[in-house]
Amino acid sequence: MPEVLQNATRGLIGTARRRRDGQAKVLGQTRYVGDMPVHGLLHARPVLAAEAHAKLVSIDATAALELPGVVAVLTAKDLGLKGGSGRVAEPLAREEIVWSGQPVALVIAESDAAAEDGAALVWVEEEPLPAVLDLESAMAEDADLARVTEVAGGGDGGAGAHGAGGGEEAVTEELPPNVAVRMRIAAGDVDAGLARADAVVSGRFRTNWIHQAYIEPQSCLAWTDPDGTLAVTSSTQGAYMVRQGLCEMLGLPNDKVRVQAAPLGGAFGGKLMISEPLAAAAALKLGRPVRLVFRRSEDFAAANPAPGQLIDLELGATRDGELTAIRGRIVGDRGGLGEMGVETISAMLSAGPYRWGAHDLTAVGVATNRVSAGAYRAPGAPPAAFAVESLLDRVAGELGLDPIEFRLQNVLLAGDKGIDGQEIKVFGAQECLERVQEHPLWVGRDELPEDEGVGIALGFWPGGLEPAAAICKLDADGKLTVVTAAADMSGIENAFIAIAAETFGLDEDSVRVTTGDTASTPYGGVAGGSKVTYTYGRAIERAASEARERLLRVASTELEIAPEDLELVDGEVRPLGSPGRGVKIADLAAKTYTFGSPHEPIEGYGGVAQVSRAPGAAAHLSHVRVDRETGGVTVLGHVIAQDVGKALNPALVEGQMHGGTAQGIGWALLEELSHDENGQLKGGSFAEYALPSTDQVPPIETLIVEVPAPDGPFGAKGIGEPPVCGVPAAIANAIAAASGARMQELPMSPMRVWTALQS
Amino acid sequence: MPEVLQNATRGLIGTARRRRDGQAKVLGQTRYVGDMPVHGLLHARPVLAAEAHAKLVSIDATAALELPGVVAVLTAKDLGLKGGSGRVAEPLAREEIVWSGQPVALVIAESDAAAEDGAALVWVEEEPLPAVLDLESAMAEDADLARVTEVAGGGDGGAGAHGAGGGEEAVTEELPPNVAVRMRIAAGDVDAGLARADAVVSGRFRTNWIHQAYIEPQSCLAWTDPDGTLAVTSSTQGAYMVRQGLCEMLGLPNDKVRVQAAPLGGAFGGKLMISEPLAAAAALKLGRPVRLVFRRSEDFAAANPAPGQLIDLELGATRDGELTAIRGRIVGDRGGLGEMGVETISAMLSAGPYRWGAHDLTAVGVATNRVSAGAYRAPGAPPAAFAVESLLDRVAGELGLDPIEFRLQNVLLAGDKGIDGQEIKVFGAQECLERVQEHPLWVGRDELPEDEGVGIALGFWPGGLEPAAAICKLDADGKLTVVTAAADMSGIENAFIAIAAETFGLDEDSVRVTTGDTASTPYGGVAGGSKVTYTYGRAIERAASEARERLLRVASTELEIAPEDLELVDGEVRPLGSPGRGVKIADLAAKTYTFGSPHEPIEGYGGVAQVSRAPGAAAHLSHVRVDRETGGVTVLGHVIAQDVGKALNPALVEGQMHGGTAQGIGWALLEELSHDENGQLKGGSFAEYALPSTDQVPPIETLIVEVPAPDGPFGAKGIGEPPVCGVPAAIANAIAAASGARMQELPMSPMRVWTALQS
Repeated sequence: MPEVLQNATRGLIGTARRRRDGQAKVLGQTRYVGDMPVHGLLHARPVLAAEAHAKLVSIDATAALELPGVVAVLTAKDLGLKGGSGRVAEPLAREEIVWSGQPVALVIAESDAAAEDGAALVWVEEEPLPAVLDLESAMAEDADLARVTEVAGGGDGGAGAHGAGGGEEAVTEELPPNVAVRMRIAAGDVDAGLARADAVVSGRFRTNWIHQAYIEPQSCLAWTDPDGTLAVTSSTQGAYMVRQGLCEMLGLPNDKVRVQAAPLGGAFGGKLMISEPLAAAAALKLGRPVRLVFRRSEDFAAANPAPGQLIDLELGATRDGELTAIRGRIVGDRGGLGEMGVETISAMLSAGPYRWGAHDLTAVGVATNRVSAGAYRAPGAPPAAFAVESLLDRVAGELGLDPIEFRLQNVLLAGDKGIDGQEIKVFGAQECLERVQEHPLWVGRDELPEDEGVGIALGFWPGGLEPAAAICKLDADGKLTVVTAAADMSGIENAFIAIAAETFGLDEDSVRVTTGDTASTPYGGVAGGSKVTYTYGRAIERAASEARERLLRVASTELEIAPEDLELVDGEVRPLGSPGRGVKIADLAAKTYTFGSPHEPIEGYGGVAQVSRAPGAAAHLSHVRVDRETGGVTVLGHVIAQDVGKALNPALVEGQMHGGTAQGIGWALLEELSHDENGQLKGGSFAEYALPSTDQVPPIETLIVEVPAPDGPFGAKGIGEPPVCGVPAAIANAIAAASGARMQELPMSPMRVWTALQS
Repeated sequence: MPEVLQNATRGLIGTARRRRDGQAKVLGQTRYVGDMPVHGLLHARPVLAAEAHAKLVSIDATAALELPGVVAVLTAKDLGLKGGSGRVAEPLAREEIVWSGQPVALVIAESDAAAEDGAALVWVEEEPLPAVLDLESAMAEDADLARVTEVAGGGDGGAGAHGAGGGEEAVTEELPPNVAVRMRIAAGDVDAGLARADAVVSGRFRTNWIHQAYIEPQSCLAWTDPDGTLAVTSSTQGAYMVRQGLCEMLGLPNDKVRVQAAPLGGAFGGKLMISEPLAAAAALKLGRPVRLVFRRSEDFAAANPAPGQLIDLELGATRDGELTAIRGRIVGDRGGLGEMGVETISAMLSAGPYRWGAHDLTAVGVATNRVSAGAYRAPGAPPAAFAVESLLDRVAGELGLDPIEFRLQNVLLAGDKGIDGQEIKVFGAQECLERVQEHPLWVGRDELPEDEGVGIALGFWPGGLEPAAAICKLDADGKLTVVTAAADMSGIENAFIAIAAETFGLDEDSVRVTTGDTASTPYGGVAGGSKVTYTYGRAIERAASEARERLLRVASTELEIAPEDLELVDGEVRPLGSPGRGVKIADLAAKTYTFGSPHEPIEGYGGVAQVSRAPGAAAHLSHVRVDRETGGVTVLGHVIAQDVGKALNPALVEGQMHGGTAQGIGWALLEELSHDENGQLKGGSFAEYALPSTDQVPPIETLIVEVPAPDGPFGAKGIGEPPVCGVPAAIANAIAAASGARMQELPMSPMRVWTALQS
C-alpha cells in the first residue's frame, strides 16, 4: 500500500460506490436551470445571423415589438458592455457578422412562445461578405478577411483552463491577416535529427469541428437582487469564472455579481460563458428575471463546439528505435471571434508523451467564419494523438519495430522533462503500455480474420491546475458538511465525500457536500482540465483535517485527555484503545451549538495551490473490422488501460473511462459539424449529428492502473480527460492493421475509408 | 490608547459612520420576506383560538375548503411533528387551547385573500375551561390549571440566548400545579444580614406584558428543493437556531433544512421560531412554497411578547452604606406553553451589579393563559432594575445617603465576583455612575421646580456568549468579503467591516459583508444577548488576520521579500518604508484567480468560543415633571452614560443608546399588552398599543464610556441590551423625586401615578 493511503482505513478509498447524483437525475428529480420555477420570469430567445460573413446593416424589431408579450428586443448596444474579451465582449454581433448562427439580437418576452414568435419577426439586414472557411487558404497573405472590423477585447479565452502552460514562445513576426496567433515550441536541431534518422514519416492530418453534445443545452437564469446585485445561476463549469467574466463584461465589482453553478446536464468543456452574458445583461437592463435556454438547433449553431484542426507532422527514428526529431505545424480554427485557441495545447501534445532528440512545433490559430470555438474534453488532444500515434505506427512499421516496445523505449518516465521543460514527477504511461502489451487482444492480434485488426495508441493529458479551497463543518447532528464552489460535472460529490470521510474519520453517510454561491463560498477554479479531484480534493483533505483537530480539542476538554491520546472510531471519540469510554461525535458536535459553549465551532478551512502536475495517460487497444465494400468500420472491442493515480471510486473511474472511450469513438468514426460551401451548418439536431449509439460502442474493457500522484488526495489524479485522447489514433491504427488504409482525416467515415481503400 | 487598539490605524475604529443598511431601508429597497416574489406561492393564514382556555373539541374546515383558492386547512396532526419543545413542539394547539389567540389551524390558499376568507370560515368548537390569568393566585396549590393536558416537549426555550447562566440551582421539592420551574440563587446568611442592617426596605413590583413592537411582523417563506431539502428564509435572529428547531420539530437531519436569515424589520428578541414552524411544516406537507406573514393583530395576539412579572424584593443596608443582604422572589409569567422563562435571568439581575453580604433570590416560572412568552431586549432586566434600583433609592433615602455615592460604594468592580460566582474581568458601571454624577442635571437637581425631579438608576446586562465563526476572502478585484451566518438586527455590517478592514489593512469601501445560508456558511449563534459584535467580531478579526497572512505570503513570493519585511499601505503591499516599490492588493488578488496560479486563495477562517463575559452597564438620569392633577408624567430630559468597551462606530452606538432609552420610556410609561378578565386581549394594533411617539421622547444625551473588554474585538463589548435596563427605574426614581410617589407597577400610567399620589 503506498504511503499516501496509510490513513485511509474506512474502506471508502478504492471501493466502488453508487454515484450520488445519479438517482435524482435518473428519476427526473434534478432541477436544471430550465426547470426552475421563477416568479415574474422573462424568456429570452436569440435571433441568429443567416450569413456566414456579412456586414450587419440594420435590425428592425418593429414587428416583433408589436407582438403581444414581447417586452424588448436587445441588440449589442443595449447590453451595457464594458469589457472582457472574445465572446464575452461580443455576445451579440456589433457591426459585423462572423458566422452563420451568430446571435445578433435577443428577444425578451413574457412567455417562451412569444419570445420565439418575436424572434421570427426580427428583420436582420445583412450585406454578405466573402466567407472564409478553409483553414489552409485562410492562412495565405492575400486571403479574404474572416473579419473586417476589429475584434472587441481580444482572443484566447480558456486555453489554460485545460492544462496548457509553459514552454511555448510567441512568434513575433508579422502575421498574415487571418492568423490570430502563432506560437513555437522548439529545442535541439531538428534538421540534423531527421537527417540521422533511419526512417522519416510525415502526414497531414485533418480533424473537423465537432460538438460537445451535452444533453442539457446551454442555459442561464439571471435576475437582480433588490440591492442591485446581479444574481446568476447557470449550467456552468465554473461559478467564479462566470462571476469574473460578467464583472469584466458589465464593469461591475465582484460583490455585485453572485453566481451559483446549477446542476449540469453535461458540459464536457463547453459550458463557460455562452448563455450567461446574454441572460445577465438582459436581466440587468430590464430589472426582471430572464432565462435563456438554447434550443438544440441554437446550441449547434451558436454555442462553442470543438474547432477543426490541420496538423502537418514529420518525425524520424533510428533502427534502434530512438526518436530523433519531430517537426510540425498545428493549425487550429478559431472561428469568427478569435476565441479559445486549442492549437497551443495541441502543438504541445503532438509530440506525445515521448522523449525526442529535437522538436520544433508551431501552433497557428486562424480566424474563419465557422462559429466560435470552445473546449471539449481534453481540447486539442485527440487530434494531436491521432497525428503522432499514426506516424509512430508508420515509422515503427517501416523500421520493423514492435509498436508497443517502440513506444515503451521512448515514453516519458518520472524524472524526465516534457517538451514544456518541466520535470515529470510521476507518470504511468509506461505501466499502461505494459498492461495492454500483455492483453490477449494484443498478443493474439495476428490470428484475427483478414478484415480485422488491432491498433494501439497512447493518449495523455498534462492535467490542469488552479487554486481551490474548501470548508468542512460538523453540524449539530454530528455529520460533516463539505462546502466548495466546485461545479459537479462528473460525480465529484462521491470523491469529496470519500476524501472528507476518510480524513475526518466518519462513515460515508455522515458526510454531505454542498455548493454555495460565489458570495459565500471559498474560491475554487473551474471544473475542467481534469483538476477538480486533484485540487479541490486536496483542499477538502486539509479542511477535514483541521476540523478533525478541532473535534479532538473539544473531546480533549470534555474527556480531560490529551488530543494525541484520542482516536475516532465508530462515530465516537475515545481514549486510545478504550472502547467503552467513548463520546459520540454527535454529542460533541451538539456541545458546540449551544449558548455559552466554551468550544469553537468544529470546522476547518483548507486552501491549496497545486504546483506539480500529475499527468494522466491511457493506452488503448482497439479491435475493428473494415468492410472493404462500403468502407464501414465496426469497433468489435476496445481495451483501455489508464493511470488514474488512485481510483477513489472505481465505479466512477470506470464510468469516465467508458464515457471518454465512447466519445473517442464518436470523434473517430461519426461526429462532424459540417458546413456547406457558404458556411451554412448542415443539420442542427441529434437526428442529423451522428453520436455513437449503444450498438456502435463495443464492450469496453477497463484496466485501472494506479501510479499514485504524490500531491493528489490519497494519490488520486485527474481522470476525466485522459481516456478520450488516444481513441481516434487507436482506431486509425486498427483500420491500418485491418486494411492497410492509413486514415488522415476525422471522422473516418465510410466514404473516407472507402476512398482511402481505393488508393 | 489601550493596547487592543494599537493596530487600529485606519481611523475606522471609533469614527462615526453611516449605517450601511440604512439607505436601502429608508428608500424602501430592502426586500423583506413579505416582499419576495415567489413563483407558485401559497399563502398561509392562521386561525386563532377565541377562548383563553378551552378544550379543543373539533375543527370543521368544510366551508373553508369549498372556497375557491383554498388548498388546505392544516391542524396540529397534519404538521408531521416529531419533537422539539415549547412552541416548536406545538405550533398549532392539539387538544387544548391555552390562550386566546393561540393558532389552532392554518389555512393555505392560492392568494392571501382566499386564505383570509378561508380562515374566517373555519369553525373551531371550543369548550371553555377556567382561565388562569393572575400570577399570584396561579401559584396556589389549589389553583385552577392553566393547562390540563401534558405540554409537548417541555419548557425553557431561549433564556440562555440572552445571557443567563451559572450560579442558580434547581429547587427540587414538589411544585404547585401551575409552577413550571423554581430556581434559587443564594449565598450567605440573609436573615443575619437583614438583622444587622440599619434600614430594611421591601416592595412588590409588578410589570405587565409588553410587545417587542417590531415594525415588520413575524414572517417566513418556506419551500422544498427538488432533493427534498426544506428551504426557509425568515425574519429571524438566528439562521442556525431556526435550522436546529425545525430539524427537531420535523425529525430531519441538519442537511435537509437550509435557512437563510432575511433582512430584519426589527426583532428585539422576539423573532425566533414563531412563524417558521407553521410555514415550514406546511411547505413540507404540500410540496409548494408557503409564506406566512402575520397581520399586526395576529402578531399582537399570537406571537411571543415579553411576559409580565411579579417581583417581591427586600434588602437592607447599614448607615455606612454597606449592602448587607437581599432576598426576593421573582415570578415570571410563562404563558400557556411554559416557554421562555425570563424569571431566572431576572432573579440574577434583581441583585443589580452590586456586592451583597448575602443573597437569596428565588425564580418562579408560572403557567397562565396569557399568550406564549418571548424575549425582549434584555429579557427580565428592566423589571429587575425597576425593583432593585427603586429600593436602593428608598433605603438610601431612609439612611440619608447620596444615591450615587451609595451605589458607587457597592458597585461591582473588576476582580469582584457577581452573584453567579463568576469573577468579573472588567466592568464599567463605576465609570458610568461617575459620569452622570458630575452631570449638571444631577448636580443641579435640587434647584428644579417643585413638580420636577431627577432620578438615577443603574442598569446592567451580563452579556451572552455563543460560538461563532467567519470567513474573510479576498476577491479578484482586491476587495475583502466577510461571510458569516449572523442575522443583521442592528447594523452589524458596519462593525464587521470596520473590524475586517482594520485587521486586514484595507479601506472601509474595500470590505463587504455577506450572509449565506446554513448550508454553506460557517456556524454562528443568534443575534441576541448583545453578543454579535463580541463573538462574531472576534471571529472576523481572526479570519481577516489569517487572510492577511496569506496575502503577505503571496506578496512575499512575488516580491521575493520576507513577509515580515512587508507592510500594507494605501491598497498596496510594499517593502517596509518603500513607497515606490509596492504592488497593488488587487493585482496580487488577481494572481490567485488564474489557472496554474502557484498561490493559495487569499482567504481566512476564524472561529471563536468566548468564555469570558464582558458585562455592559448604563447609568441613567431621567428628568421628569409630574402633573399632580392628572398623574401624567412628562420626561423632560434623559442622560445615559453607557460603558460600551470601545465604540467601534459611535453613530451606531448612540443609536442603540437612543433606541434602548426610548424603548425603556415605553416600558416605564406607556406600553401594556392587557387582557380583560376573560383573558381576551384588549386591542391589537398600534392605534391601541401605546408606543412612545417622538413628542414623548425627550432629547437623550448620550455619554459614551469606554472600558475596553480584553476579549472583544478592539475592546468592544455588547451594547444592544444594556441601555434599556435602567430606564423604568430611573423614571420611577425621578417620579419619586418630583412627587414623593413610589411607583411599583409598570407602566406608570397617569391613572396609576394619580392613584399613587392620592395615598
